Amino acid sequence: MNDDNIKQENWYTEKTKGVGFSFEYEQKIVDQQSKFQRIEVYKTKALGKILLLDGKTMVSERDEFAYHEMIAHVPLYTHKNPKKVLIIGGGDGGTLREVLRHSSVQEVTLVEIDSEVIDVCKDQFPNLTSSFQDPRVNILNENGIEYIQQYTSSFDIIIVDSGDPEKFALGLFSTEFYQSVYEALKYDGIMSCQTDNPFLNPKEVRQIYQNLIIGFEKDIFIYIGYCLIYPGSFWSWGLATKQYHPQNDFRLDQCCKDQFPTKYYNHGIHLASFQQPNFIQELLQQSS
Amino acid sequence: MNDDNIKQENWYTEKTKGVGFSFEYEQKIVDQQSKFQRIEVYKTKALGKILLLDGKTMVSERDEFAYHEMIAHVPLYTHKNPKKVLIIGGGDGGTLREVLRHSSVQEVTLVEIDSEVIDVCKDQFPNLTSSFQDPRVNILNENGIEYIQQYTSSFDIIIVDSGDPEKFALGLFSTEFYQSVYEALKYDGIMSCQTDNPFLNPKEVRQIYQNLIIGFEKDIFIYIGYCLIYPGSFWSWGLATKQYHPQNDFRLDQCCKDQFPTKYYNHGIHLASFQQPNFIQELLQQSS
Repeated sequence: MNDDNIKQENWYTEKTKGVGFSFEYEQKIVDQQSKFQRIEVYKTKALGKILLLDGKTMVSERDEFAYHEMIAHVPLYTHKNPKKVLIIGGGDGGTLREVLRHSSVQEVTLVEIDSEVIDVCKDQFPNLTSSFQDPRVNILNENGIEYIQQYTSSFDIIIVDSGDPEKFALGLFSTEFYQSVYEALKYDGIMSCQTDNPFLNPKEVRQIYQNLIIGFEKDIFIYIGYCLIYPGSFWSWGLATKQYHPQNDFRLDQCCKDQFPTKYYNHGIHLASFQQPNFIQELLQQSS
Repeated sequence: MNDDNIKQENWYTEKTKGVGFSFEYEQKIVDQQSKFQRIEVYKTKALGKILLLDGKTMVSERDEFAYHEMIAHVPLYTHKNPKKVLIIGGGDGGTLREVLRHSSVQEVTLVEIDSEVIDVCKDQFPNLTSSFQDPRVNILNENGIEYIQQYTSSFDIIIVDSGDPEKFALGLFSTEFYQSVYEALKYDGIMSCQTDNPFLNPKEVRQIYQNLIIGFEKDIFIYIGYCLIYPGSFWSWGLATKQYHPQNDFRLDQCCKDQFPTKYYNHGIHLASFQQPNFIQELLQQSS
């Protein structure tokens, strides 16, 4: 036996309530501590580079399309004419990239609290961050909760592209924050936000949904999709909308007004994503 | 430091192409080798008991409802009046339990090649195997590929509830087998079968779809859902149907003709599950 023939396997597991998503990596290429969190990047064969924040998988090059297309295109195609967009979080640039594909969009402000996330992603994920150069974009390194309080009737779309409800992101799931979002949206504005895995984290999803109902006052919808690298790989998003209905107002011709290719999203998926398995329906009924 | 305070964590990871599903277990309660495969049962806090065959997670007590409801209710509610059902595989009893909830069903034959799987599940998963006692049920320990060749125009529904396309299950994904299924179904019969994860195993899914198209001659549909413990947690099933269309012929009143509670399946999910993300549409177009 020659030691050179023994292949060393390196595996990382993100553990969530007794289950985990694991990936094999070739090497860790970034590991740094920002003012807010630990930032790591692993290089993998299966999924390309993977970004982790405080040990939680945030983005993989191979599967990031699903999350970013769903958090961006569902609100943008529900709105009749989205021009002015605010993204809170989303420092990796993936949501921004998808928002900018809509030709109606004239101005996007991205408020990411941690400038080091943006710097690492610019170095490591050029496919995600290329849209930072778009002249329609304004990047701010500020606290999104404080930022949004300055605005009234200002945005067509607000996308809350945050981590899990803990530490500095906790406030992004509060009733008070959703009230601020409501104020900052125009009369026909829409917010989308990530709302965790309803199978693994039912209590958390129920609490977020309840806060959305209390804070936002208008119609709240939960839609679902598939995101491999997030805990349980099954994901939900919230859609809070002042006027437009994501199923009734959504039209095929509207979906096709911008002709750009997508890997996950299409008009069938848009409508299907609002259909919930019974266990989610029951979970949400307990909240309302 | 007292050694007694150091909690020992036991984790199992099923690895698939550089990614994995991991779970923490309290203990392994079954580990035996049958004529066909290694059979293991782990006890976990997160998911109850978990059955593994040859190291692959097959069933967990907590999430089994999603897979079993989707493989059973989609074909049974698409068919106008399903009376006679054949299940190939499915030795854990979960699919059988769901099939028997349909009052139209008069006779179900379950052909499971490995009698030890049935014995272990009877011991360990009573919630799954209780339906083995139903007088409508006939259990056979035979090779499903050989069994089905005896029949012509005999079954309303055939459900192929198998493991992955390898070893003794490989033949259950072949063109020849699908031809036998076509022959064994009545003029308006329907088959459902599990067809793997299209994101992690695109080549395998494409090959299965191609074999279905060649072998079955009639309409083939792929539908999707969420199964936590399978690789990538995103799952697909095939529906091969001689006459009924799963979206056009499916009616709300039909879905409600049997009033029994489900945890995953409902009529919205039935229709939504046939909407595919673009990456799956493209994958299947390459096959046809």
